[in-house]
Amino acid sequence: MLDAGIPPSLMRAPLRVVDLIRKKRDGGELTREEIAFLVEGAARGTVPDYQLAAWLMAVVCRGMTRAETASLTEAMLRSGDVVDFSDLPAAKVDKHSTGGVGDKTSLVIAPIVAAAGLFVPMISGRGLGHTGGTLDKLESIPGFRVDLSLQEFRQALTACGCALGGQTPEIAPADKRLYALRDVTGTVESPALICASIMSKKLAEGIDALVLDVKTGGGAFMKKEQDAIALAELLVDTGTRMGKRVVALITDMNQPLGGKIGNALEVEECLAVLNGRGPEDLRELCIELSAWMLLLGGRAANVADGRVLAQEMIASGRARDTFRRVIEQQGGDPGVVDHPSRLPRARHLETLRSKQSGFVAEIACERVGVASVVLGGGREKQDDAIDPAVGIVLEKKIGDRVAAGEALCIVHYNAAARLHEALQMLEESFVIRAQAPPRAPLIRKVIGA
Amino acid sequence: MLDAGIPPSLMRAPLRVVDLIRKKRDGGELTREEIAFLVEGAARGTVPDYQLAAWLMAVVCRGMTRAETASLTEAMLRSGDVVDFSDLPAAKVDKHSTGGVGDKTSLVIAPIVAAAGLFVPMISGRGLGHTGGTLDKLESIPGFRVDLSLQEFRQALTACGCALGGQTPEIAPADKRLYALRDVTGTVESPALICASIMSKKLAEGIDALVLDVKTGGGAFMKKEQDAIALAELLVDTGTRMGKRVVALITDMNQPLGGKIGNALEVEECLAVLNGRGPEDLRELCIELSAWMLLLGGRAANVADGRVLAQEMIASGRARDTFRRVIEQQGGDPGVVDHPSRLPRARHLETLRSKQSGFVAEIACERVGVASVVLGGGREKQDDAIDPAVGIVLEKKIGDRVAAGEALCIVHYNAAARLHEALQMLEESFVIRAQAPPRAPLIRKVIGA
Repeated sequence: MLDAGIPPSLMRAPLRVVDLIRKKRDGGELTREEIAFLVEGAARGTVPDYQLAAWLMAVVCRGMTRAETASLTEAMLRSGDVVDFSDLPAAKVDKHSTGGVGDKTSLVIAPIVAAAGLFVPMISGRGLGHTGGTLDKLESIPGFRVDLSLQEFRQALTACGCALGGQTPEIAPADKRLYALRDVTGTVESPALICASIMSKKLAEGIDALVLDVKTGGGAFMKKEQDAIALAELLVDTGTRMGKRVVALITDMNQPLGGKIGNALEVEECLAVLNGRGPEDLRELCIELSAWMLLLGGRAANVADGRVLAQEMIASGRARDTFRRVIEQQGGDPGVVDHPSRLPRARHLETLRSKQSGFVAEIACERVGVASVVLGGGREKQDDAIDPAVGIVLEKKIGDRVAAGEALCIVHYNAAARLHEALQMLEESFVIRAQAPPRAPLIRKVIGA
Repeated sequence: MLDAGIPPSLMRAPLRVVDLIRKKRDGGELTREEIAFLVEGAARGTVPDYQLAAWLMAVVCRGMTRAETASLTEAMLRSGDVVDFSDLPAAKVDKHSTGGVGDKTSLVIAPIVAAAGLFVPMISGRGLGHTGGTLDKLESIPGFRVDLSLQEFRQALTACGCALGGQTPEIAPADKRLYALRDVTGTVESPALICASIMSKKLAEGIDALVLDVKTGGGAFMKKEQDAIALAELLVDTGTRMGKRVVALITDMNQPLGGKIGNALEVEECLAVLNGRGPEDLRELCIELSAWMLLLGGRAANVADGRVLAQEMIASGRARDTFRRVIEQQGGDPGVVDHPSRLPRARHLETLRSKQSGFVAEIACERVGVASVVLGGGREKQDDAIDPAVGIVLEKKIGDRVAAGEALCIVHYNAAARLHEALQMLEESFVIRAQAPPRAPLIRKVIGA
């Protein structure tokens, strides 16, 4: 009555999913073949959801070794097509961020690095939960298409040096199934699963090198810096095992990056950076990530040279020109680059003012992200529609002095219905104190350099 | 991109399954309401298999408190009907075994206890893996029906003092779904899940008291005595919380119980015990379990009196007469009681002989159970057909002296195809040593007395 079937050791049975689940449940290390068997089953649909779900939870609870993580990444990568851009005459380099609020660097970095002569085949995702997604931001540019076929993606990459698309069905299909399942089974939070999901998709892009932006802090997935560092080390190790040059930057996400949150608003802010303006933190991080990409891609001898080169791409207008070209190539209105007012705009503005005087000591970053979702700028569920125009513009950031009655942020909204809830969340997000907080560095650490 | 949805604390969302999964994953204690929400969802089909599977694995990995286990048992009990036999004029008492090889006591105990004036509404299961099932054994009696409706079950119970049936769809439907899922997701091995599964079904029988036979040893589900004791304590605690009188006996399963393994063979051995013969260990355990049932049901003042009463029921032939009546009541051939040769018999016998002289020091009990499955006497998968006639008759048990060439066991088989495999398993199962092993007691401990 209580038996879980006959142990295979007694029956000489072939590889069975339930035995692999039990092995992981009991803390065992799965072999490369065993992991490949599970992942192929996930991709082909021969292993049912409930067995995958149980296995995923066992992985979350018991962990995976570095070798298992590499095997999982490899199996997921091999579950689909791997793009071959080896005919292109320079290194293929990409950047991946673990996600945050106002995290919009892709739109600045891809043009910078492409303008400097490397190829950036960037496959991005959509926003979910409190974090935004690069594809949603790009789609706020009128006409811009992210659902490129592989051929269109290659054309854009060849013509502009960068291409900005979404994941095609041919790329890592096992990840697609596992990711959807993890979302509804409480099995997102596993470094091994996160690593395999990220790296399998990125390595399928046919890249030579990858720079990772691993966020940490209240608005990040990894709240604690030690968790972010552990994930970064795992990502770098896994990529290196797969023969790629990989570096990870641990960067601050205790407040939104830049001043604007919301899809069109973030495009606008990226255009400001490409035009040599924009907020300091966003500019700094874009330069830094670009510098590492240029170094790994062989365009710079060291990071300092990479920074200089990245800054030149902005100052010369070449990055902005590249962005204009890629917008045109992908069906968008290139006029937004010089006339950002062509981007969608919300009909109403509402200013949130400080009740006290002092210094902004904290900003509850995740809550600001959720406030943007509440306004319609993001998704609670995967099939929610998005309003590209709405969002939040921060007038004060951590460390700024603020007087009572002064604006903390401006809410851009279309539907009045949920304005109140968003405003209340934003009000709760700002912590004002008498003393200025200590300055926290934006870039905390570099892993794998 | 890495976000697992917005935390409900930020969105003021209603109870969500994924949050309960995450709570358990992180080692939290679920409330009675949260557990009821999940179990109702399992019974109604509103929670998908993959979420249940992830939750079950989290329970296996993180465990459950006593309070959670009681809540789970209660919720599973309430997912279906609870039978009401309160109109019957004596206590309703049952026995449950965690399963083993040759474990056939139910067929002896139910008639003994019913003959002594208590009611035994016994709902049993089928064999799976290396352990047999009471229903399969009963069905080896020509004509015997175990698929009784609730009304037929009540009629048998009223007429004979005992009824021997299978689980009806109305009883604990949540358990049915969860049990099927556990079997294929590696989530059988959780004391809390095992306890809730056993107790919800047993408490749904409308019993006043329950005696548990928790097996330990190589042929048991709980190989280690400490695990068996922990499970027994949990079962007793949970039953007591639900207002029942519960006692658990920890009994040895390092070798098969009695001498016969296989469905008809086991019925035959039970008839021998009811006729005052049969192997000593089987007789002892049947008397002991019956004695505790008679004590908890108020028919005996203490266990010693219970033993005397149980032995009287055998010696007087009243237990045998009760068994004859219940067979007739449930459509079986009552003639088997006096003419066991009417039970199905295998066409061929093969004797396994010892290659050495010495003492039987060990019998790999689980392997013997698997050998019986290989012959066709049990199931590897839930829908496998069973051959009621095949099985194994042990000629030697642990501690017995054996000479080279003497019979260790006799295999009863119909299909020659798998005889070789079964024989090899059996040969590997017997360990012969020069020295006699120390005697191990059959009944190790009593919990809850």
